[in-house]
Amino acid sequence: MQPPAVLAIHGGAGPAPPDEAHGGEARWPGQAAGLGAALRAGLAVLADGGPALEAVIAAVMVLEDDEHWNAGRGSALTSAGTVEMDAAVADGRDRRIGGVACVTGVRHPVLAAQAVMDDGRHVLLSGPGAEAFVREAALAFERPEWFITDRRRRALENLLETGGTVGAVARDAAGHLAAATSTGGRNGQLPGRIGDSPVPGAGTWADDAGCAVSATGIGEAFLRAAFAHEVDARLRLEGVDLDTACREALAAVTAAGGNGGCIAVSGGGPPVMPFTTELMHRGWAEVDGPLWVAARPGPLERFETE
Amino acid sequence: MQPPAVLAIHGGAGPAPPDEAHGGEARWPGQAAGLGAALRAGLAVLADGGPALEAVIAAVMVLEDDEHWNAGRGSALTSAGTVEMDAAVADGRDRRIGGVACVTGVRHPVLAAQAVMDDGRHVLLSGPGAEAFVREAALAFERPEWFITDRRRRALENLLETGGTVGAVARDAAGHLAAATSTGGRNGQLPGRIGDSPVPGAGTWADDAGCAVSATGIGEAFLRAAFAHEVDARLRLEGVDLDTACREALAAVTAAGGNGGCIAVSGGGPPVMPFTTELMHRGWAEVDGPLWVAARPGPLERFETE
Repeated sequence: MQPPAVLAIHGGAGPAPPDEAHGGEARWPGQAAGLGAALRAGLAVLADGGPALEAVIAAVMVLEDDEHWNAGRGSALTSAGTVEMDAAVADGRDRRIGGVACVTGVRHPVLAAQAVMDDGRHVLLSGPGAEAFVREAALAFERPEWFITDRRRRALENLLETGGTVGAVARDAAGHLAAATSTGGRNGQLPGRIGDSPVPGAGTWADDAGCAVSATGIGEAFLRAAFAHEVDARLRLEGVDLDTACREALAAVTAAGGNGGCIAVSGGGPPVMPFTTELMHRGWAEVDGPLWVAARPGPLERFETE
Repeated sequence: MQPPAVLAIHGGAGPAPPDEAHGGEARWPGQAAGLGAALRAGLAVLADGGPALEAVIAAVMVLEDDEHWNAGRGSALTSAGTVEMDAAVADGRDRRIGGVACVTGVRHPVLAAQAVMDDGRHVLLSGPGAEAFVREAALAFERPEWFITDRRRRALENLLETGGTVGAVARDAAGHLAAATSTGGRNGQLPGRIGDSPVPGAGTWADDAGCAVSATGIGEAFLRAAFAHEVDARLRLEGVDLDTACREALAAVTAAGGNGGCIAVSGGGPPVMPFTTELMHRGWAEVDGPLWVAARPGPLERFETE
């Protein structure tokens, strides 16, 4: 029997909020609601028998519009006070992958990444060239100020590492896998910086023969570990289980001087979502099952739909 | 006994020249001399007991200045007729890696990649942000016209796929590994396109515990295969030999719709340099040994130093 269709999402890994003055725990109900809304958007695709690729994109679009997260509206600011966003999508059916890096003004970077993948000429487009491509693809743009929230302005002033990259992985009813990741990068990053999120094999990967992975954390360390492909390689070549593969690959991230986490799903079984930070905002659900969400380590809590 | 210090380089993989009208075979003596000069520059570092990292950078700098190759001066042109260059360096001692993407005007992109790695804040910088960083690092710039050759203008007009990415891998006297890759990208590529060359785990990789790899070919397929890290993973996790690991990873590139080749070296033995194209310009040498160069499949020819 085919394993159930399943979706997992994350809203970034990072330190626990320093105190209530910065919003901290008081934001969790809103974050939980945001995770729930994203899960529902993706599950609606899967429940209709739709492809995993469409499910992860639907979930990430909701998170990009939600200013709780560091992606789309509410993205982290560069050292120049600007928003530069990265995103990728990966389709496990044929290992196609597409990404955009350092794009400004694109409302849904995940759709831009999909457009790059579907166009097929290139895998990764960046900067003004990517924006010109996105305009040709007739995707929505917003003015620069639309993306910038007061919370991110304060974070830049205080040099807080805010985390909040978003991502999704899914397995559909036909057993196909997909992954998507979207981020505003690191608070105070140099303009032009590309992290792991849009890079095939670093922050995003999907292969039906292996697994789908979306990572979050200190992107430089995930790039140095070739993280997402290391998870896939350990599953495929070392023969360990998915959770072990993720934990071994996270150990390589630690060795590279960073921390973070990931969500991953393979051809069978529930998703795994290990992390080495204090928090990783995350959620998952099977089609027709309850929604599960959490920020702290340990068991997830059931999110009640209204 | 420590295996000998060794250096391998490539000047790109691709189809055989269509005919003499395009320069074709008549260019080989100049190309062979260029490969010889690059080998000598890298070997000079290794002969002094210098690190593999410095050797690969020295070799790639020579190739970047040599207009036979698609890197630095003589880079391929984008669809807009401009030059956008990518490069990466990887140090196997600590798996540090640095890259630049879509930079214009930087005389030696490989030095820009090294500056990103040494700075340490980020792994990959692109576009105008990367150029600002490079100016801060006080590296040399040239005017846009300096990079553009008549041959590349004709190639753009005729939509020829010209190849010519350059790269180097080395093992030094202490057994440490390093890799570097530099490219002008694909002829007629969209502005903002990033290929495999600057991407950790795709076109460039080095880990003393595994191998050092520099790839060349249709970059999109190498990105989709997470090529260089796949070589390392097969060597490390599957336990095959280096040549087999490269050939298996090249099969994944073929499955992803592309072709090309790579040079790779591990902790022992000579470098390997397999390719799936008609040509791959390449060379290698041990310290104090003869220089070997070739473009076509089969045994390499001894290059006589003057």
